[in-house]
Amino acid sequence: MGAKSCIIIFFFMVLATSSPSTGRKKQYKSCKELLLYFHDVIYNGKNKENATSAIVAAPEGANLTILAGNFHFGNIAVFDDPITLDNNFHSKPVGRAQGMYIYDTKNTYTSWLGFTFVLNSTDYQGTINFIGADPIMIKTRDISVVGGTGDFFMHRGVATLMTDAFEGDVYFRLRVDIKFYECW
Amino acid sequence: MGAKSCIIIFFFMVLATSSPSTGRKKQYKSCKELLLYFHDVIYNGKNKENATSAIVAAPEGANLTILAGNFHFGNIAVFDDPITLDNNFHSKPVGRAQGMYIYDTKNTYTSWLGFTFVLNSTDYQGTINFIGADPIMIKTRDISVVGGTGDFFMHRGVATLMTDAFEGDVYFRLRVDIKFYECW
Amino acid sequence: MGAKSCIIIFFFMVLATSSPSTGRKKQYKSCKELLLYFHDVIYNGKNKENATSAIVAAPEGANLTILAGNFHFGNIAVFDDPITLDNNFHSKPVGRAQGMYIYDTKNTYTSWLGFTFVLNSTDYQGTINFIGADPIMIKTRDISVVGGTGDFFMHRGVATLMTDAFEGDVYFRLRVDIKFYECW
Repeated sequence: MGAKSCIIIFFFMVLATSSPSTGRKKQYKSCKELLLYFHDVIYNGKNKENATSAIVAAPEGANLTILAGNFHFGNIAVFDDPITLDNNFHSKPVGRAQGMYIYDTKNTYTSWLGFTFVLNSTDYQGTINFIGADPIMIKTRDISVVGGTGDFFMHRGVATLMTDAFEGDVYFRLRVDIKFYECW
Repeated sequence: MGAKSCIIIFFFMVLATSSPSTGRKKQYKSCKELLLYFHDVIYNGKNKENATSAIVAAPEGANLTILAGNFHFGNIAVFDDPITLDNNFHSKPVGRAQGMYIYDTKNTYTSWLGFTFVLNSTDYQGTINFIGADPIMIKTRDISVVGGTGDFFMHRGVATLMTDAFEGDVYFRLRVDIKFYECW
Repeated sequence: MGAKSCIIIFFFMVLATSSPSTGRKKQYKSCKELLLYFHDVIYNGKNKENATSAIVAAPEGANLTILAGNFHFGNIAVFDDPITLDNNFHSKPVGRAQGMYIYDTKNTYTSWLGFTFVLNSTDYQGTINFIGADPIMIKTRDISVVGGTGDFFMHRGVATLMTDAFEGDVYFRLRVDIKFYECW
């Protein structure tokens, strides 16, 4: 092994180990991917048995069984939604999506999300933690995967959300395309 | 130094610097550990002086001095709890746990946590930021340490929670075993 | 290239690539910096048109148009605030700060923040996600940048907050000095 090849390998390694500060998203390859769906049925005063979420905070003048006017600005909903592998509400859940969403804009539908996927299946045991803005009217929205535990120990990544279906203000289904870029 | 030893060192370094994507949690060694306790006294209408937390949101039909039925589903509590080095509520606090918990399940006690440890002692100055799901009835629960400042600048890790004690719906004490896997 | 220089380069590379676990914050150089301002006008019952935030949760006995007593302990506000490049409320926004703040202390003004910068300008397209404690009465406060998307894909860092101005309980302006230490 001569000096030249030594230098070439050094060069390669410096590239491989340096902080990737110049590139754009497109250049990165994920180390793990998951495609999951979750289903939210919001309580509207009449569906206590089936509801998986509830409005728990609202702005002045609004109530807790009807999403507020002004694009629901000021509503906070708490949820415990089933996660499925496909888009069928009746498929066997592989876990629960638990946390909250906040409608935070007065002139369009936008929410802020803080939640956890608690996965409990033969394939995955562990949790994935998310936060981010969800501008609902845009087709695909990216939020951050900020950490995980169990099978997702210390993972980080980006999750792309798509509204897969919705029925009025009572039901919506989100498709969540999770790409991890830091695996452990 | 011959070519062989050079190659061996290269091999070792590639291992050491590559993203650890194949392993499981058990293989990792933390770079810093902290064992702390925090104490939550929830406001129930009669303990204004001593309470360290308060219910601030509730589902339809519930109120702000009694945790809601259905496993408190829909309650949000805001807290500013003393952190101690041991399990004694009366020990000198080394900081405050500040943030919120959300009861988010209808058929068991589960909360979603977003909070910060603000440490201010001779040993540690800085903050540690946490989010995650807390299935309270399970003995040990893991949440994510998603960042930090000061002495915990840019740290990441996993915190294991244990309910160390509780008294009805008014007091609970959490043992928090923090393991950092990214230190700076 | 002799064995000696080879060893020296090895030594340098091990230093450069090993986890920086011994140093203090001061030694690190950011890979990207942003200085931005955001402006919060809280709804007080009379400013519906101009308000960018609203109280949506409050402790027992408080209401949703006046921040609660006891240093606003227990209030949750939801916001959608304009972000500007300078400290002028009327400058053209480069994005929106969206999320919530929680007043979480009974004996001083402290809030807990969970929010996202949604940037949409010629310079930046993407989101930056923040959480952390904000002890408002202290001049500079550090919170965590826990993730990002788009131009801030997978970024992490620390943001230093300063209250740049405030007018009673209705308006405040925050200066946010974002330093990223992990860029991609």
